[in-house]
Amino acid sequence: MLEEIKEKVFEANLELQKKKVVLYTWGNASEIDREQGLVVIKPSGVPYEELSPQKMVVVDMTGQVVEGKLRPSVDTPIHLYLYRNFEQIGGVAHTHSSYASAWAQANLAIPCLGGTHSDYFYGDVPCTRRLTADEMDQLETNTGKVIVERFQDLDYNAIPAVLVAFHGPFTWGKDAYQAVFHSVVLEEVARIAYFTHGLNPGIERMPQSLLDRRYARKHGKGAYYGQQAP
Amino acid sequence: MLEEIKEKVFEANLELQKKKVVLYTWGNASEIDREQGLVVIKPSGVPYEELSPQKMVVVDMTGQVVEGKLRPSVDTPIHLYLYRNFEQIGGVAHTHSSYASAWAQANLAIPCLGGTHSDYFYGDVPCTRRLTADEMDQLETNTGKVIVERFQDLDYNAIPAVLVAFHGPFTWGKDAYQAVFHSVVLEEVARIAYFTHGLNPGIERMPQSLLDRRYARKHGKGAYYGQQAP
Amino acid sequence: MLEEIKEKVFEANLELQKKKVVLYTWGNASEIDREQGLVVIKPSGVPYEELSPQKMVVVDMTGQVVEGKLRPSVDTPIHLYLYRNFEQIGGVAHTHSSYASAWAQANLAIPCLGGTHSDYFYGDVPCTRRLTADEMDQLETNTGKVIVERFQDLDYNAIPAVLVAFHGPFTWGKDAYQAVFHSVVLEEVARIAYFTHGLNPGIERMPQSLLDRRYARKHGKGAYYGQQAP
Amino acid sequence: MLEEIKEKVFEANLELQKKKVVLYTWGNASEIDREQGLVVIKPSGVPYEELSPQKMVVVDMTGQVVEGKLRPSVDTPIHLYLYRNFEQIGGVAHTHSSYASAWAQANLAIPCLGGTHSDYFYGDVPCTRRLTADEMDQLETNTGKVIVERFQDLDYNAIPAVLVAFHGPFTWGKDAYQAVFHSVVLEEVARIAYFTHGLNPGIERMPQSLLDRRYARKHGKGAYYGQQAP
Repeated sequence: MLEEIKEKVFEANLELQKKKVVLYTWGNASEIDREQGLVVIKPSGVPYEELSPQKMVVVDMTGQVVEGKLRPSVDTPIHLYLYRNFEQIGGVAHTHSSYASAWAQANLAIPCLGGTHSDYFYGDVPCTRRLTADEMDQLETNTGKVIVERFQDLDYNAIPAVLVAFHGPFTWGKDAYQAVFHSVVLEEVARIAYFTHGLNPGIERMPQSLLDRRYARKHGKGAYYGQQAP
Repeated sequence: MLEEIKEKVFEANLELQKKKVVLYTWGNASEIDREQGLVVIKPSGVPYEELSPQKMVVVDMTGQVVEGKLRPSVDTPIHLYLYRNFEQIGGVAHTHSSYASAWAQANLAIPCLGGTHSDYFYGDVPCTRRLTADEMDQLETNTGKVIVERFQDLDYNAIPAVLVAFHGPFTWGKDAYQAVFHSVVLEEVARIAYFTHGLNPGIERMPQSLLDRRYARKHGKGAYYGQQAP
Repeated sequence: MLEEIKEKVFEANLELQKKKVVLYTWGNASEIDREQGLVVIKPSGVPYEELSPQKMVVVDMTGQVVEGKLRPSVDTPIHLYLYRNFEQIGGVAHTHSSYASAWAQANLAIPCLGGTHSDYFYGDVPCTRRLTADEMDQLETNTGKVIVERFQDLDYNAIPAVLVAFHGPFTWGKDAYQAVFHSVVLEEVARIAYFTHGLNPGIERMPQSLLDRRYARKHGKGAYYGQQAP
Repeated sequence: MLEEIKEKVFEANLELQKKKVVLYTWGNASEIDREQGLVVIKPSGVPYEELSPQKMVVVDMTGQVVEGKLRPSVDTPIHLYLYRNFEQIGGVAHTHSSYASAWAQANLAIPCLGGTHSDYFYGDVPCTRRLTADEMDQLETNTGKVIVERFQDLDYNAIPAVLVAFHGPFTWGKDAYQAVFHSVVLEEVARIAYFTHGLNPGIERMPQSLLDRRYARKHGKGAYYGQQAP
């Protein structure tokens, strides 16, 4: 069942570790099969060394396990909430990567300060509002809710990342691999932004004209980065 | 004698090096056999490359070597003091990991700023008071004393780590491996807290409701993280 | 065609990754054959693992591909602009290395603070002015233009590096390898300068007499560093 | 000639690279044979990958090459100056390690803030005064001079390290290996001190009683760290 996606999700999860954005089991990546309405996700708390494609868990859109002997990631309801509301995404990833988590703990958006950022995120990477005490009961689902709420006036395709206040980053993309790729890029962007802030706390964002221009090099119809036909 | 524990303590000490929380010989881990009242600990000042399970030292609760040709870690009296006073712990670890040591040198507790912290430590990781000049004679024993003193009104099971002022971190757990695991987690928590402080020195702690909720995901009867039955 | 240079450019690009100044495909190095007026450069967006000398792209001084099936780096017009205006250079490199990019994002020159810097860069590593909105149309060519503009009163041989505002560093040298070498050195210089700034934001530059003296140890007729005859 | 020392100096220089305190060729270590009045030192500017014991250079106390085809390190006069004036040392090392160099560039001593520091350096690691313009002619010899000058009222055996203003650290010890060991330890001490400063710029030194007590654990007649007989 969904063997190809399991393989992809397995590889994407390993990439989180190879790129050093997770410590121990702190991270997870998933991918959705939109036609079948099924999501493949990493099992909860299993060391990366013991993972295999067969250990990936298949859940339906309500979070019920459809295949797999292991329990899915505790963050599964967050992934599902995002899949339900961001209808064009195919993969989701979550880490506690150090610099991105620091911005999340500081309850600050990562300001768009330069080309490294604007090549992948079209503007600030936003930070959610805090959850209220009432929202604790359904912690994971409500985490999904505040993410989606934060993107009410933002384009989730153009900014495929968010910081959850007092927690850490979530990213997404067309598939599990791209979601993970955005997690790795986000951590580096958060790191450079941290250093920039250290040099000049009165951070000024990059000019809008440059942001538009650089983003367009890699995204949209006029993109000319890489080897794809324009 | 205690072959299984020697193997575990040996592996736990190696993990300190693999996870890069020790430089040269700066760290030690131990485990206690509560029934026999014996502790297995790393020998003092032996390079990690030369360690083996057989080189682990067995001491009794007074610090006398019961088995082993090498001298035990100079910090042995601290470990013993903790085992005597924290009766439910089974392992202790000590490092000079960089970020945790910086908080210790600054005589500051690591504030509980987000999910990475609260998943393992239920509230601030406290810093001990300074030792007085009179307490220098029995440096190690008194280091144990100020740690226990600091936990008079704290739950050592819920916060399995401490910073010793002007020195560095000690951690504990149900066995040597978990004590080491907490050392590694603490260093990452200290690191993210350092960056958060850099972004916003007026650090605000995470809301109590979120702290309670997140900690409960991994600890206690209602825990649902990982593969253990709830 | 230009097989030897292709091999050198390939090796130089790999060095960028080995020295960890690029993440994913974020960097490029080139070398010029001045006699033929041809430049060998990395293809755009190809993972380092898939590169080979044969995949390097040969372009003429107008940017037309003369040999190679792949599209050249999107930054090719910047490289060409530098080759046309800095007539004594033979290689160019570009990265988004973390600390150098932070200085670029802060729109600050890297001040010349000590021997590590002055051994390779004779004075501050300058930062360009910002591009105007009008200059966005020809982003890459105009990036080259503001670099050359910035060096109007500076010696590009003595300071083989620049920061492009809101973007990142470019470096150059007698060949592709030396350009890459300068990228790696620049990142370390930017890193030490960042830490120095953290210790003392009122940074004072090193004395001119020491700058002159140290630079002369490695450069010019009286140089006596290394194994070359003086 | 001095084959054993060449081997030791070769290994000590490699350790500089293994412990990541040098980039490219930026570092050197030497050892003296006090009876013969000869010093074995790394050749100048040779990549670590190409080094071998046979390539080490033997010089006499005036800096004349006695054996070896390569030119000795440009810093040889500094090493010799230290050997002449610090009569009990047997090895010297020099690096541009990042954090120690930052303190040197900031013209600040590394304050003695905790146990990691005081285990190896009995008090602040001092920074030299700046060289005057007149002292540039004999840059290396005068660098040695300001180091020795700085230790007029300090015990070079108890503080085996110094920062040279606007330059970087020099360390020493009983042999080349210990000098290198002190370079590695110094970098970590400088790093933790940098973080401590970031948390609390009004740095307070550790109490003298604790400094005395900790240093004595590893040094002098009453030392009880490690496996040597007390």
